[in-house]
Formats: sequence, C-alpha cells, structure tokens
Amino acid sequence: MKPYFNSNPYNNVEVYTDLAVEAHNLAVKRTGGEVPGVSVREEIVENAKITRIEVLNQQGAEAINKPVGTYITIESQDLRGQNRLAHDKLTDIFATELGNLINFDAIRPHPNLEPTIFVVGLGNWNATPDALGPHALNYLMVTRHLYQQAPPELRKGLRPVCALAPGVLGLTGVQTAEIIKGVVQLVNPDLIIAIDSLAARSTDRLARTIQISNTGISPGSGLGKKRLAINQETMNIPVIAIGVPTVVNAITIVNDAMEQLIQGELFSPTERERFRHIEEAEKKRLMANILSPYMGDLIMSPKGIDELIKDVGRIIGGGVNVALHPDITPENLSLYL
Amino acid sequence: MKPYFNSNPYNNVEVYTDLAVEAHNLAVKRTGGEVPGVSVREEIVENAKITRIEVLNQQGAEAINKPVGTYITIESQDLRGQNRLAHDKLTDIFATELGNLINFDAIRPHPNLEPTIFVVGLGNWNATPDALGPHALNYLMVTRHLYQQAPPELRKGLRPVCALAPGVLGLTGVQTAEIIKGVVQLVNPDLIIAIDSLAARSTDRLARTIQISNTGISPGSGLGKKRLAINQETMNIPVIAIGVPTVVNAITIVNDAMEQLIQGELFSPTERERFRHIEEAEKKRLMANILSPYMGDLIMSPKGIDELIKDVGRIIGGGVNVALHPDITPENLSLYL
Amino acid sequence: MKPYFNSNPYNNVEVYTDLAVEAHNLAVKRTGGEVPGVSVREEIVENAKITRIEVLNQQGAEAINKPVGTYITIESQDLRGQNRLAHDKLTDIFATELGNLINFDAIRPHPNLEPTIFVVGLGNWNATPDALGPHALNYLMVTRHLYQQAPPELRKGLRPVCALAPGVLGLTGVQTAEIIKGVVQLVNPDLIIAIDSLAARSTDRLARTIQISNTGISPGSGLGKKRLAINQETMNIPVIAIGVPTVVNAITIVNDAMEQLIQGELFSPTERERFRHIEEAEKKRLMANILSPYMGDLIMSPKGIDELIKDVGRIIGGGVNVALHPDITPENLSLYL
Amino acid sequence: MKPYFNSNPYNNVEVYTDLAVEAHNLAVKRTGGEVPGVSVREEIVENAKITRIEVLNQQGAEAINKPVGTYITIESQDLRGQNRLAHDKLTDIFATELGNLINFDAIRPHPNLEPTIFVVGLGNWNATPDALGPHALNYLMVTRHLYQQAPPELRKGLRPVCALAPGVLGLTGVQTAEIIKGVVQLVNPDLIIAIDSLAARSTDRLARTIQISNTGISPGSGLGKKRLAINQETMNIPVIAIGVPTVVNAITIVNDAMEQLIQGELFSPTERERFRHIEEAEKKRLMANILSPYMGDLIMSPKGIDELIKDVGRIIGGGVNVALHPDITPENLSLYL
Repeated sequence: MKPYFNSNPYNNVEVYTDLAVEAHNLAVKRTGGEVPGVSVREEIVENAKITRIEVLNQQGAEAINKPVGTYITIESQDLRGQNRLAHDKLTDIFATELGNLINFDAIRPHPNLEPTIFVVGLGNWNATPDALGPHALNYLMVTRHLYQQAPPELRKGLRPVCALAPGVLGLTGVQTAEIIKGVVQLVNPDLIIAIDSLAARSTDRLARTIQISNTGISPGSGLGKKRLAINQETMNIPVIAIGVPTVVNAITIVNDAMEQLIQGELFSPTERERFRHIEEAEKKRLMANILSPYMGDLIMSPKGIDELIKDVGRIIGGGVNVALHPDITPENLSLYL
Repeated sequence: MKPYFNSNPYNNVEVYTDLAVEAHNLAVKRTGGEVPGVSVREEIVENAKITRIEVLNQQGAEAINKPVGTYITIESQDLRGQNRLAHDKLTDIFATELGNLINFDAIRPHPNLEPTIFVVGLGNWNATPDALGPHALNYLMVTRHLYQQAPPELRKGLRPVCALAPGVLGLTGVQTAEIIKGVVQLVNPDLIIAIDSLAARSTDRLARTIQISNTGISPGSGLGKKRLAINQETMNIPVIAIGVPTVVNAITIVNDAMEQLIQGELFSPTERERFRHIEEAEKKRLMANILSPYMGDLIMSPKGIDELIKDVGRIIGGGVNVALHPDITPENLSLYL
Repeated sequence: MKPYFNSNPYNNVEVYTDLAVEAHNLAVKRTGGEVPGVSVREEIVENAKITRIEVLNQQGAEAINKPVGTYITIESQDLRGQNRLAHDKLTDIFATELGNLINFDAIRPHPNLEPTIFVVGLGNWNATPDALGPHALNYLMVTRHLYQQAPPELRKGLRPVCALAPGVLGLTGVQTAEIIKGVVQLVNPDLIIAIDSLAARSTDRLARTIQISNTGISPGSGLGKKRLAINQETMNIPVIAIGVPTVVNAITIVNDAMEQLIQGELFSPTERERFRHIEEAEKKRLMANILSPYMGDLIMSPKGIDELIKDVGRIIGGGVNVALHPDITPENLSLYL
Repeated sequence: MKPYFNSNPYNNVEVYTDLAVEAHNLAVKRTGGEVPGVSVREEIVENAKITRIEVLNQQGAEAINKPVGTYITIESQDLRGQNRLAHDKLTDIFATELGNLINFDAIRPHPNLEPTIFVVGLGNWNATPDALGPHALNYLMVTRHLYQQAPPELRKGLRPVCALAPGVLGLTGVQTAEIIKGVVQLVNPDLIIAIDSLAARSTDRLARTIQISNTGISPGSGLGKKRLAINQETMNIPVIAIGVPTVVNAITIVNDAMEQLIQGELFSPTERERFRHIEEAEKKRLMANILSPYMGDLIMSPKGIDELIKDVGRIIGGGVNVALHPDITPENLSLYL
C-alpha cells in the first residue's frame, strides 16, 4: 500500500491503483477497446465474480503498469457483510484460486518432501487500514516447528508453514524486503505468500475484492521512492501476493468530481468541448492544486474499517490454511485453529 | 460525530461542520461580512490561536446553526506533532480555557462542598476516529470513590470526579443520552463534561483544533434522525462539551474541487459568471450526484489517526485533570496518574 | 471477581470461591456427608458435565456461603480447547441451561409484549483476566434500538436486548451497581443478565467451567468492603448471573501445599495426629504469614489467558443470543453477527 | 522467559530464576558464604539500588547457573509506581548503566562511523506478561532508515538504530534466534540489544527490577528443550540483554510455604531437625507432587500487569534511546518521540 502513503503530487495525479482489474479498466477506457498483451476472462460463481487477467508480455505490462504474470480478482459484496456462511463460501473460492496458482509439485525441494511456505503479513499494525497482513496471520496455522517432530502419518495432510509480520520501514528502520530476505536465507522456504492492504481507485471495491497474483510485490512503482521488491527476482523463490483494497486515493474523488462536473448538464456543449481540449498537463496541475491540502495526509477508508480488517483477515488467513494443507477444508477449518 | 455517520444525501450536501469557528466562517462568506448575533474574538498565544465565539441570540444561532452559548477554539499545529513540551503547553492552554468556562462556585451543591463532576467519553471505541472520548478517559483522574473516605487535608486540592464511556447506540441498544441521564439521576453530579470526536469541514483542522463549549451536545441537528441531546435542558445540570475533529466530510473535497475548478483559470470570466448564477438547488443536486457513491461509507481521517487519538486523548484527559483539581498543574500532572 | 482483588489477610485465609459447586464440595468435606438445605444433581451429557445445585433455605445458604437459589455449573475440558465444533456444542448446552433458568412468561411486561433484557458485561477491560464480561458483549446481538422500528414479522423471532459494560469502581468512581441501576430506571428492562469473571479454588476449573445462577451478584460477601449487590432486591427485576472462573486465589496453592505436606509420608503418624489438633486459628495465622507477601498482588491465571478470554467470551455471548432469541440457534448463530 | 513456559516437573523443581542477583542469593544460601568466581558490588543511589555482579569464570558460572559476564540489576519500588518524575530518574539510571556496558568505540565498524544497533523486542505480544519486549519497541527511536540520508550535522548526535519484534516460535514456526540471525546477516549491525520479560523467584521483584547483562540470552538452560541462544557466539556480534521480571514460578510459593511451615513454631525442634535430614530428592518429589496440577498452566503475574507492561516498556524504550544517542537526554527525551 506504499503508493498511497508516499505521495509526490505531480506523479500521483495519475489515478493509481494496486488492482490489475482497475488498471485494465483504465487502459480500456483510454484505448477504447482491447489492451494488447493482456487477456481477461470473467467467471460468475455463486456469491462472487472472478476475473483472471494475464499480462502476457512487456507491452501489456506497460499498458496497465503491472508486471507480466497472472492476476486473479475475486469480487463479492459478501466480503464486507457479516454472514458467516457467505464468508465460508468466499474462503472456499479464495482457497481454490490460491491453490490453483501455486504449483506445489514445482516447488518441492525433493520429490518426497513437501515444500515449506513462508507467509508474510505486510503492513503497519498501528495503522488500522494497513493492518490486514498482520491480522491475517492471527488466523494462520503455523506448522513448521511441529512438522519435523510429527510422525509421518500426521504430517501427511499438512505442509510446513512459517510466518512473519515484518512491520514497516518507519517501525523497524530496515526495508521490509531485507527482513524477509534475511529470514528466507536462513529458513530456506520454497514459496513466499505475501499478504498486504491495497489502494484502490473505486470505493466500491474497498473490502469487497481480493487480488491474488504470482508477480510478487513491487512497492513504489511509479513513485519517486524506490523500495526493494518482494518477488522471484529478489527472493530467488516464487512469491504469491494476496491483497485486499482498504483505502482509496483522494485523487479518485476529485477526478470523479471534475469529470462529472464537466460532463454534466451545467455546461453547454461548447464549454464541454473546449474543456476537453485543455491539455492533460494543465488538468493535472489543476488537480494537484485542488488536492494539495489533502495529499499524504488523508486516509479514505470504509466505515467500520476496524471490524472489516478483522473479518477479511479471518477469510484470508483461513483460505491460506485451506489452500496450503491438503487435510484442511472450509468445513473442518475451525477445528485447526 | 453523528452527522458524519448518518448521511441523508440531500440534507448533507450542506457543508456540515461541528466546529462553530468553521460554521461562522461559512456564514461570513455567505453574508460577506459580520454575522448578526455572533461575536468573535481572536487571541494569539504561544503555540496556539484561541478564538472565542459567542452566539448571543436566536438570530446568531440560526446564522451559524449552533445553539446560543460560548464556543472556544484552540488551534495549534503542535497538537498533531509529537513534541511533548508543546503538548504540555497545549494542556495548559486548554486547561485554562476549560477552567474559565466552568463556574465552580455556581455549581457547588453547598457553600462548603466541592461540586461533583461527571466526565463522559462519547463515541465508539471500536472505530478508531470515533474513539477519542473513551481514550481520553484513560488519562482522567477519577476520584469520587476515594473522595468521601479521604481526610479533609487531602481532599482540599481535589474535586470529586467520576467518569463513563457509555458506548454508542449500535453497541448498547440504548440512546447514549439515556445512559448518561440514568447515571446522573443516581449519582447527582453538578456538572457534565462530555468529550467527543467531531466532524470538520477542513482537513487542516483535523487533530489540530480543540473546541470547548458550554452548550452541550445536540446530535443530529440538521439530520433526519433525532437523538436525545446531552445539555442542560435534558440533564438538568450544566454540560460542557469538548471536541476534537477527527474526520472530514467527503463533501468538503468535492465542494472545494468544484469551487477551485470554477474559480480557476480554466474558465473564461463569462463562463464563471454564468456558473455563479446557476441555482443553488441545481448545484446541490450535482454534488449529491457526485458524492452518492461515497456517502455514508467513507471515513476520511488523518494519516496516523491511531496514534493521534492516543496523543490528543492524553492532552484532553490531562487538561481536564488540571482544570478540575486545584492542586494539579501541567507540571505535576504526571505525578497524579 | 471482587474477593480476589480485595484481600483482608485474615478473612481471606478461608478458601474463598465464587463457584457454588466448589463451595458445596468444601462443605461436604467439612461435614463429611450431605449438606442440609442444599440439593445437588449431576448430569453427564456429551462434552460436558452439568451440576444443578439448589440452595433451598437459609441453612443451606450459610453452609455454602451462597444465597438461596439455583446454581448450574457446566464443566467441560473443551471450553479451554480450540475445537470450534465442541465450542458450538457447549454454546448449545449453555444456551439451553440459561434459557431454562429464564421464565420468559413471568417477566413479560404485558401478555403481548416480549420482555426487554439488559445484558451487563462486568469487569475491567484493562485487566485481562477480569475482561470476560466486556469481551462477551462483543458477541452479543443488541436489538432494542432496532426492535421498535422493526415490522411485527421480523420482531417475532427476536427479543429486545440492550447491553452495557459499566467498568469498575476504579475506572468510573461510581459503584457498578449504581450505574446499572441508573440505566435500569430509565430503560425499564424486565431482566438483567450479568456476565463476570470469577475466582475459583481449583486451577482445574479455570476457563473450564460456566456457572449460571438466578441469585444475582453479591460482591464482597465475606470481605470487609461492602459493595451494592446486583440482584432482584437492589434492581427490582430478576438478575441472572453468568460467570467463568479466570483466576485462582494464591491461598489455594499454599493450602494444598500444607495439606499434602502434612498428610504425606514425610511425617510420622503421631506428628500428623498432633498437627491435626493444632487449632484452626493457629493454622490460619501461619497461612496468612506465608501468603502475606503475595496477597493483593499476584494474579494467578491460566497460560494463554488473553486468548481464552476471547474464546470463552464468544461462547458466552453467542449462547446468550441463542437463549434470548427464539429464531437464533447454534447453527444459524453466525448469520446474526 | 522460556523456563516458565516449558516445565519439566522434575527439573523445574529447582527454583529457577532469570535474575543473576537471585541466583547468587540462592548460591550464598547454599554455600553459606561467598560464591567463588562471582564478585558482587552494591550501590545505593537515589530511588534505586544497583547491584553489579561479575561472573568471573566457569566456576562462578556453574555456581549461579549463569554464563560468564556482567549482570547489572537496578531495583526500585518506583518502577512499579506511577510517579513520572521517579520514572524519569529511573530512565536516567538505567540509561547510564546500559551506556556504560556498551563499548561504543569497540563496536565501531570504522573509526569514522557510528555503530549500527539492532534492538530486538522478544516475547509474545498476545500474552500480556510476555509482551514487554514488543511494547518497549513502541517507545524506541528508530533512525537507521533516516540516518543515511541525514546531513552530517544532524547525524552527529544520533546513532543508526533498527528494531524488530520477531514473535515467538508458536507464532512464526521459526526459532526466534534464526529470524534475528537472518536480519543480522543482511543488515550487518554492530550490536544487538535484546529486551525480554523474565521469570523471577520472588514476587517482590516483579516489575521492580531491571537486569542488564552482556551475556546475551540463552533460553532453555537447565530445561529439556534446547533453543538457539542469542549471544556473541551465535550472532558474531556483542549482545546486550535487558530484562524485567513479570512472572514468578509457582514453585516459589510452594517452596516458601514448605520452608515457613517447617521452620515455623508448629513443629517441635526435633521434628524440624528430622525434616532437615530428609533427603533433597524426597523433598523435590513431594514438591513436584504438590505442584503438578499447576505446572505449565498457571501464570503468576502482578495485579495490574497490563498497565505495568506499558509503563515499564516506556522506561526501557526511553532509556535505550538515551543510552544510544548522544544528543538524547532524559530531559529532552520526549521531544524525540
């Protein structure tokens, strides 16, 4: 969720989003049709809509400003509700998608050994909307320390899982990716799963969308500050990223206000026409101007965010358990925690 | 902080604020000059600006949509910083203003008895920006239960203080004012001090302003939902309200965006002129339109709100201690907690 | 949980317990057989043992130092485990016993009206083992404020429930019973359910026992400090008390140590015999001596108490929901929260 | 604080303590005089007593069951009080002792470079008495990430400090020492300061004693389970350990009960004499018997532990700031947080 918190007014006037599905929509709007290098498939299931975006090549990556790879988005109104049955179904859907994205056979250290998975809860536990990662770890079944001592028949349905909430740079003085890399070098896991809060463009998606991707996390893309990424390149093992949007960028509202204002009936067609031809740079300057008092300062998060973080954390943590351990199902999940 | 959380799109398009100083500024802007029935005095002190607004009569009350009474606003950049020395000075300034607003002699139950003060921490402890009241009570010195047993020489520098965080309707199923009134009827305090989070119009004021008023709290004024007020009329004893803005209304940003857009250089003078004459009703409809996806849903609070609530809660709780107990000063405050 | 926290060495050397089942056991040990005025029935069900103690008259009340009334104890190893299925069964057992103890018809304010129930979460949320009551309220379905506006068909399966966590004397400066009474006088509920942490004699019972009684809560019985009770006499409506032991008294361990030491093989039969004849008063003085450095100072609570309070709070809060609302069952409980 | 939580009845019947000062007292009691290989100096200062124990050689290490090195104990009643002035003095005393134990010149990576210090907050943030380390980090000034970018004149009075709360094995599935070592290998600090909760023998010392040592932390010494130590040997850089006792072992109370019972007047001189000659092994068996129902289960921590952890955490975190940064003093400490 770095982009939200590190705002360079002029760069940031681009409507940034962590969600590939939003980035793709913006690209479609810009190009007016298909985005070359990006394939999109949608599927409607009970309780949710699943969108699978493949960024196929560098052209696609540049078009939507996301690295090459797979982005799965699960959208559901129920994520934000309090219906536990619906939550259980979402846990199931999420676990299935996550499980499908992980190639367990490919990451085995040895044909007879289960891979060790390192789950990282990113974000700042002292800032409610940024605390999803640490919260999700509360619901994670950590097994690595028990696994080696367990008899083979018990091990069978489980995989060794370890976990860490590394905090944020301001709390530790160390780049998050460095802490993770340090642990990776000693513990030698075979896969990293990183859970993080995201910034979305649309308030509709707040706490209603789960994104799973196999591209890792590249904080600060498009921002001035360069931070070490958490991905296969830096960690030397695959990195799956799981994120849920919990904040929106102030620019979204201003942008929408401007567009609606200008497209609206308050203006005559010629006025509208004239405005359309004002240069992009000029518009951006104006928006930066309007936004400057709010930038880097305002958190725009859903009402009830304190509770939402807990609820969504339970779904994410629970779903990771189901995806990682063969013997755990959404039905018996509660027996394991 | 009710207005923020109960939004009726059409009513709420009025730029609502809990701060008298903002309401007065809006009225000045509207009338273009003095607001009849309202007197304003400003004072610059070290570290802070103090504004004293007197709503003198019904005309003034209607002009700024606040009950007749005194509203003292302390504004300081330091409230939001982490400089403890500056916090100590603000505690002192706040305590002095609060102490001046309380007429201890008038509320004594008997010439020889100190008045009992009931401090109420309003708001929802499960929603970070709404949790200022409950947090402030953590720093309050509660003495009523010790007072009666204390020997006269110890009592001398202290006053009997009791406290309650009554929660919110959604948590208790009981109107907050009813809980307070129930306790008041049994405990018979002589003054209520109610601490609450407020909604401001300007993000600049978030966690940078303390408002003290002797008019109590009248939740829901201007909103559809009518809630029982917490004021002299309902409680039969004086009620001092202390508030700090922790959220801003989404409408503020849209409103500012519209104004800046229209006043800006993008439009020709004739366009601007024409826009100025578009009816208010039409403008409101447009704004409600722009805002509708965000209403009742988005919390806009300052970054670092979790920490700010703690810091400001300490200043408020500490300042109330200094104001209420003759023997407590900003210097020796820490000895008492 | 007052007895634990207010220790008068000499009085407290009596092995105090909040649990009727333990008090009865002690009486049996003393008398060597039946305790007149007290009837006891045990029932073994799946996952739990239920003990129903009736204190029939004043003689029984004095024998076990508990007021006349019914005390139901549900004991289960599963309360302390993390098996959600077992938790669901315990929720069911608890809800059934609680429901049976409430005579809903008798407390209706009018033949056509459902009674209003006021659930009180006693204890100090800042002291982990004392925070059970406030925590249980997090899982309570509060309906009173919605009930009046709900259409009759929705009301049918629900009852109006309100709730408050009144804090403790040290936090509020007001006796807990006074706060409750104030709210009762304004809200006019028909039944109070008070949830509290208890002190047990045996560590085996910590977080493994639920006690339900219809005698209310009489804090400080046997202690120097007299506090206002929360019972039918003081509140003018029935009071059901629900408690779970979360601390043990230090005296328990010392007492056990002494007994084992003396009964053990270290001593010759004649030594043991002699010791048996040492006066009770002398033994108490010795124990008070041994205990004095620990009294009023040490909390002895189970390992993992932070998590236990949350888990048990969910079972208690959930069970109260099932007991109070006809439409809520252990199966659909999660849909209501 | 491992020994407390991992109890092997027979081993643990030895009265274990994390405090060198208690271990030394026990050895003195056993030997009846001086303990060879251990030197002890006491100093009384305002507000506190400082004991400096040097374990000089292997003989001393075995005698008190602590590694060779320096152990400084600061004892003060004020640590547990709420007097902020006294807390400030303790912060000063603690910072001075800590600063003296660190040889900053010896750990400089280069004559012109300040050493980087890595502060580790050990323990489980979900178990109140074990949460001291994580809490202390809340008050730590973390500078490493700012240090490199800061201009030389700002750097001058500060040193680069980074921090991590690595959790516990049960939360992460990774040995704490492994996480720390991983970070150490990547970040290359020059000194580790590890803050932890300790187990004491005497309840008098709970939250009243700070121990500083240069021997690091060797969890599990004397216990069955072997855990990787955090010391110069394992980390390749010096490790300073800071600890405050927050729990006592149940065995302490039983042991005291037995001793007082036997030494007391209840027994005749001949009985006492006979008891003295009962074999140690027999006594231990008896104690293990008495204790078995409580072992591994009961936490015995001071009343008000939730608040104590916060208060002591502030003193420790603040004192570390003063010790590490030349420009920070107890007086201006609050300006830096």
